[in-house]
Amino acid sequence: MNKNYSALTLNELPKRLSSITAITDQIGTDFSKWQVTEVGDGNLNLVFIVIGSNGKIVIKQALPYVRVVGDSWPLTLDRAFFEYNALVRQEERDPGIAPSVFYFDREQGLIAMECLDSHKILRGKLIAGEKVSNLGEVIGKHCARLAFKGSDFYMQTKDKKNDVSLFQKNLELMSITENLVFTDPYYEAEMNNHTEGLDTIVKTLRDDVVMKSKVQYMLLKFTSNTETMCHGDLHSGSIMCTETDTKVIDPEFAFYGPMGFDLGMNIANYLMAFLSQPAHRKNSNDNKSFQGWILKVIEETVNAFFEEFTNLWHNSRQGILFPKCLYEDQDQTTDYALNLVLKHILNDAMSVCGIEMHRRCLSLAHNADFEQIEDVTLRAKLEARNLLLGRELILSSDSIKEISDLTSLALKFNERNIL
Amino acid sequence: MNKNYSALTLNELPKRLSSITAITDQIGTDFSKWQVTEVGDGNLNLVFIVIGSNGKIVIKQALPYVRVVGDSWPLTLDRAFFEYNALVRQEERDPGIAPSVFYFDREQGLIAMECLDSHKILRGKLIAGEKVSNLGEVIGKHCARLAFKGSDFYMQTKDKKNDVSLFQKNLELMSITENLVFTDPYYEAEMNNHTEGLDTIVKTLRDDVVMKSKVQYMLLKFTSNTETMCHGDLHSGSIMCTETDTKVIDPEFAFYGPMGFDLGMNIANYLMAFLSQPAHRKNSNDNKSFQGWILKVIEETVNAFFEEFTNLWHNSRQGILFPKCLYEDQDQTTDYALNLVLKHILNDAMSVCGIEMHRRCLSLAHNADFEQIEDVTLRAKLEARNLLLGRELILSSDSIKEISDLTSLALKFNERNIL
Repeated sequence: MNKNYSALTLNELPKRLSSITAITDQIGTDFSKWQVTEVGDGNLNLVFIVIGSNGKIVIKQALPYVRVVGDSWPLTLDRAFFEYNALVRQEERDPGIAPSVFYFDREQGLIAMECLDSHKILRGKLIAGEKVSNLGEVIGKHCARLAFKGSDFYMQTKDKKNDVSLFQKNLELMSITENLVFTDPYYEAEMNNHTEGLDTIVKTLRDDVVMKSKVQYMLLKFTSNTETMCHGDLHSGSIMCTETDTKVIDPEFAFYGPMGFDLGMNIANYLMAFLSQPAHRKNSNDNKSFQGWILKVIEETVNAFFEEFTNLWHNSRQGILFPKCLYEDQDQTTDYALNLVLKHILNDAMSVCGIEMHRRCLSLAHNADFEQIEDVTLRAKLEARNLLLGRELILSSDSIKEISDLTSLALKFNERNIL
Repeated sequence: MNKNYSALTLNELPKRLSSITAITDQIGTDFSKWQVTEVGDGNLNLVFIVIGSNGKIVIKQALPYVRVVGDSWPLTLDRAFFEYNALVRQEERDPGIAPSVFYFDREQGLIAMECLDSHKILRGKLIAGEKVSNLGEVIGKHCARLAFKGSDFYMQTKDKKNDVSLFQKNLELMSITENLVFTDPYYEAEMNNHTEGLDTIVKTLRDDVVMKSKVQYMLLKFTSNTETMCHGDLHSGSIMCTETDTKVIDPEFAFYGPMGFDLGMNIANYLMAFLSQPAHRKNSNDNKSFQGWILKVIEETVNAFFEEFTNLWHNSRQGILFPKCLYEDQDQTTDYALNLVLKHILNDAMSVCGIEMHRRCLSLAHNADFEQIEDVTLRAKLEARNLLLGRELILSSDSIKEISDLTSLALKFNERNIL
């Protein structure tokens, strides 16, 4: 750790940041009147909202350890450096999707950015039954733009390789994903926990050598595939929304990986929202209606992804992959090629989706959709559906050809009484 | 280019290198008596053999351009840096397979290494009909050791990611492969040439959208897959042999890529040696016998690869992939998992094999096996077999389940009268 690093406190923050013009430009210079609150509810960092006479700003600072675990788990401050780099690329590739960045200090692991105070974390909204217009369209397009524009379909190969070289250094955060997501769920890892009553399901998963091998095959892809820069953690806790606006935050897990990674993780979190609804909507009509809306969001997300990827494929394919000299310039269509690539992406996405559904119920860092269900029997019942649907997706990722194949499966598992 | 760089000449070499102890230790200090010859017959570099009173040494120096094309095609001197790094890793992972390295000067793009003067380039031996004992076993094992020990099956993930980050900078040489191997053969690229009479075959390949798309899909893997450090150019010109000893040279194209890459390129060059034999062995018994030996080498190579990879899998699997905590520690075998990985490797290898067979007849840098056939009609006839076998392998890479599937195909195409 850098010896000049010092974690901000509520008291010290105004004085320490008062001389930074990029910050005072946003909120005003009279730092004695700044109101500071700490709102970090994530697993890793400090997050302050600072309100000055002229406006508000968010100050996010990395801690030298994993916040949710404590200083027994040290973690590089440089994750802020990768978050900053990812935010810059997100803005380039999909302008407006991420909060504006005003200032970055690598030594302090500190980013000053736009305060999204009218936005709420999507996960909370899904639990509360609050809809968001255009959610699927915005995130689906965003995933397609990140996937395409960070890849050799679009970037100059030199720029892309230099960027891969840079992001390979985000190895501590990749390592968290490698362990917590792909491996821990499938053995008695130290930090695991699962809901009472799920032991038989957990045994089923751990006994399934075919499925575990498919998961590890996906780990091989996660750790040895540099198709594009992924957000790396695009669950519903990394999305903030008003009723009509959607933003993506927290890309510190950014890495070069499979083009289907973000899409898969995103859908997994919708599926978990979907399967947990019966515990949050006591009225069965409300439940049915909101569940239907979530499935529609999934459909819209995947459709928007495919549409935008197709659009970029036809209009912005300027890299070394599937170049026009092999197709258009020879009067040949790219229909077959595009379909091959989309199938590949969807296949990876479905595998990642199933794996994410597992780790959120078995490894560290469960998600609130299930975790907030106080009735343990009900929680176990819903999580069992989630775990077995995850297994189905991992085993049969390549049989999901259309998005209706996925939503049909979701509806089927939603009816199953496993426990 | 570094301004202190200066290409060696026959006259200047002794004086310039006379003060380097690592070199004089090998060949003696009396540089006035050093005999220097330039023997570089490759496409890129200067290669000197220097004979002193105490021994011989090879001095390999990168030129700031592609030798076979000239200074109109500039190329980074840093390829020597990557060659040096690859040689070090080859020695670590398969001791004795590569020439010993005595000295490296990054600024001059210069490596001093063991002189293999009783060894001959394998390609020449295959054309001359000279057998090498244990060739398949040595190279098959070598490919397995490189594949396994440079991967997340074996390395610590931190070390591996740092190494990936380093080798991503070998981008100019990767770029040559990306263009010359994966794309140029399939359109009218500037530096292409092909034997008279092959126009209809070339048209068949360029019209085959399914095959071209599969090739580009493999390019996606080449450029976005970092499974292991590959030699990157393991054709029969990068292998030197006596009757009983085999060495691998020239890893300047080293990159992190698919575990099956080196194996596939190696086999491609044996298949081209096999298919070109009828032009080099006028006696049909000699031809049949030597062709049979080449197929046996292919079988031995693949079998040795599988055996050694399996051996390493069981005894040295210490990385994050397919960890023992998911299998052995749960009293479950890894048979399914290992088979999945081997199938994946063989599938990639067969695709790369077919692509290499194409580029060697259509793009820049043809290989001598065909190029030395003076009878153009015969050359075209044999190259046509090669091109269509390559196509078959690309299209059906996943139907090659056992090595006999490949050798049967080779025998079948060897009999086909296409032109």
